[in-house]
Amino acid sequence: MGTIQINSDRLWQRLDELAQIGRIPGTDGCSRLALTQEDRQARDLVVTWMQGLGMDIVIDGIGNVVGYWHGPRTDRSLPPVMTGSHIDTVRNGGRFDGNLGVLAGLEAIETISEHGLSPDNPLAVGFFTGEEGARFAPDMLGSLVYVGGMPLEKALDVVGIDGARLGDELEKIGYRGAGPCPGIVPKAFIELHIEQGPVLEAEEITIGVVESVQGISWTELTIEGQSNHAGTTPMTMRRDAGYVASKISTYVREMALQIGGTQVGTVGKIDLYPNIVNVVASKAIMTVDLRNTNETTLKEAEGRLHKFCHEISDEEHVTIASQTLSRFEPVVFNEELVDIVASKASSLGFSSHRMTSGAGHDAQMLARVCPSAMIFVPSRNGVSHNPAEHTSLKEVTSGSNVLLHLLLELACGK
Amino acid sequence: MGTIQINSDRLWQRLDELAQIGRIPGTDGCSRLALTQEDRQARDLVVTWMQGLGMDIVIDGIGNVVGYWHGPRTDRSLPPVMTGSHIDTVRNGGRFDGNLGVLAGLEAIETISEHGLSPDNPLAVGFFTGEEGARFAPDMLGSLVYVGGMPLEKALDVVGIDGARLGDELEKIGYRGAGPCPGIVPKAFIELHIEQGPVLEAEEITIGVVESVQGISWTELTIEGQSNHAGTTPMTMRRDAGYVASKISTYVREMALQIGGTQVGTVGKIDLYPNIVNVVASKAIMTVDLRNTNETTLKEAEGRLHKFCHEISDEEHVTIASQTLSRFEPVVFNEELVDIVASKASSLGFSSHRMTSGAGHDAQMLARVCPSAMIFVPSRNGVSHNPAEHTSLKEVTSGSNVLLHLLLELACGK
Repeated sequence: MGTIQINSDRLWQRLDELAQIGRIPGTDGCSRLALTQEDRQARDLVVTWMQGLGMDIVIDGIGNVVGYWHGPRTDRSLPPVMTGSHIDTVRNGGRFDGNLGVLAGLEAIETISEHGLSPDNPLAVGFFTGEEGARFAPDMLGSLVYVGGMPLEKALDVVGIDGARLGDELEKIGYRGAGPCPGIVPKAFIELHIEQGPVLEAEEITIGVVESVQGISWTELTIEGQSNHAGTTPMTMRRDAGYVASKISTYVREMALQIGGTQVGTVGKIDLYPNIVNVVASKAIMTVDLRNTNETTLKEAEGRLHKFCHEISDEEHVTIASQTLSRFEPVVFNEELVDIVASKASSLGFSSHRMTSGAGHDAQMLARVCPSAMIFVPSRNGVSHNPAEHTSLKEVTSGSNVLLHLLLELACGK
Repeated sequence: MGTIQINSDRLWQRLDELAQIGRIPGTDGCSRLALTQEDRQARDLVVTWMQGLGMDIVIDGIGNVVGYWHGPRTDRSLPPVMTGSHIDTVRNGGRFDGNLGVLAGLEAIETISEHGLSPDNPLAVGFFTGEEGARFAPDMLGSLVYVGGMPLEKALDVVGIDGARLGDELEKIGYRGAGPCPGIVPKAFIELHIEQGPVLEAEEITIGVVESVQGISWTELTIEGQSNHAGTTPMTMRRDAGYVASKISTYVREMALQIGGTQVGTVGKIDLYPNIVNVVASKAIMTVDLRNTNETTLKEAEGRLHKFCHEISDEEHVTIASQTLSRFEPVVFNEELVDIVASKASSLGFSSHRMTSGAGHDAQMLARVCPSAMIFVPSRNGVSHNPAEHTSLKEVTSGSNVLLHLLLELACGK
């Protein structure tokens, strides 16, 4: 079986076709926030492809879509070997993030089918709702619900950044399905994804063998000060929410650099009110994204942020309310499965590197219920969540072939 | 003539009636940005009041509205003695800022009329277009055009924060008039305004005699970095436009405190792109508002900001483009007129205090073409540009009576 290969042109063509939906004009990138009309169109297209492969399609209550494929000698009573990812993007995203994992899964199955192979276990390809968290928090919401980590009703009531209720938006695009939540527990879950970071490219490695995922802590801070005239209010008499937001933003970066190691910290979102040139801001709403592979250090970073907020709210006479938007502990993948990924990459002749994922992925949710692991392929210049996101055809092909052979090996009935 | 007084109940009632237009629910404040439908309604109401006083109304090419009043023995060949202010507000403003100066002017004329007095010079009350600068920059745009400081055509082409062209919005509300720009040069201009700062209240003084206005420098900075994934991009490899905006924002406040004296510095507006929790911002657009009574020190502050931007753009590998939105040198009012204001306040029995205005006002534009000065009344807690903005009925009455008697004294024909 080591010699069969995916059809890289077909896969590349489908990546391109899917990327036309929500395409950002003049770029290769996409803007396809979860449960928008663009997401609906993309879902419809992928479902069409699943149907073309003769898959049985199950849509569950949170809109996760899983296609099941059975060969002529597949035992339907065995648990499926599952792959997949997501097809929603950030507002200004690329065409590979998530999409590659889904379409490579379909490509692997089409290749298996064309070669007349019939694995013992059913094969499944899923795409999960709202992985990015760019519209509805938390990120990886669909896979979290899939594994029973959040009650369905609570997830349906999540309100997005645009004020829309998740359940309503799901109904609107026709993807509120009848499939069970939590969903079927696979025998194993493997996710192919772009690295979204610079390491593989810098070290000239083809395959990243992902053995863990950083813990993620998202906090929203609401700072309330007092609106005042920018000309007539002495500096010492101000309660400037915008200034406090800026102080916190610079603190987050400086703290992350000071902690070092895998610690990262980002303030990606700041909204000032009323946001006018000559008015001292009365209110600021901002987010803080902290990540670390070590739970203790991540907690330390959260503690330092909390302490800084407490101090500056006293100094500047503002109030700061803090709300956790998302919190996931670091995840360690199944050791045996990680070893299989490494040996498969090696047996196919690819260089590989064991690594930690800096981003959250659906695989970390599936890891709660079944052996899970991930395959990374390089990202050009480490760029992701950006229309310039790129992975070469050669690298896409290499990663997809590793996925193909992993699916075949894992679906051996045992 | 020292005994006549304005009708304070009538003035208070009109302030309240005008404040119903664009009123912010649950507050005493208003949201009435320049040339919106709310501004049109407010203009219509004030014009109705002017008509009720038998004024001749002139609307000029930029939408400034001036009502001229003549008593039975007024010499129409003499230049008018003018008062007035503006009726646009910031997005989240109060009911006194600007409105008081216009309605107190009308109240003074109604009082003069009721007493059968007939000054030698015509009296005029104006309200100028877009004083706040909250929708169209620069602030004091209408009075700037009135005194010939900006060509009419250039002003009509100004594009607002919502992308609308000023000239189009002016046509839409029906206030593009045929009156000349520049407009008629008055004999003198007196503007009554709330202080918008805490000084008069703190010192328990009734009347502020404004002898100068701070210079104003508004800059828009556009920072371009690179959008990246917040989890996978090491801190040292980022080009974070949001972080740079925050550094500049904190620098502005710290620099203003360091320079001291009358120096103020405010970052009231920051917009990040794409403004998402897990994406390093690729772009930030922010404003910086710097003010000082001393032109040399104001230039020094601008220079230090420029230098800081230059240094941080190098350090953080971002580009920073700078655009001047508004720049006015400090203004010194006519000494003789300022003395008259002070002596009038004193002769009416009010405590008074010579002071500098921290905010820009239409009077500083009129000062380019005729003797001008201002009367300030206290602002509760120094609050302005906020629905909580308040000046008591007693203080409003005191300031309006000073205005009344100044108009009578100045319109003496000489």
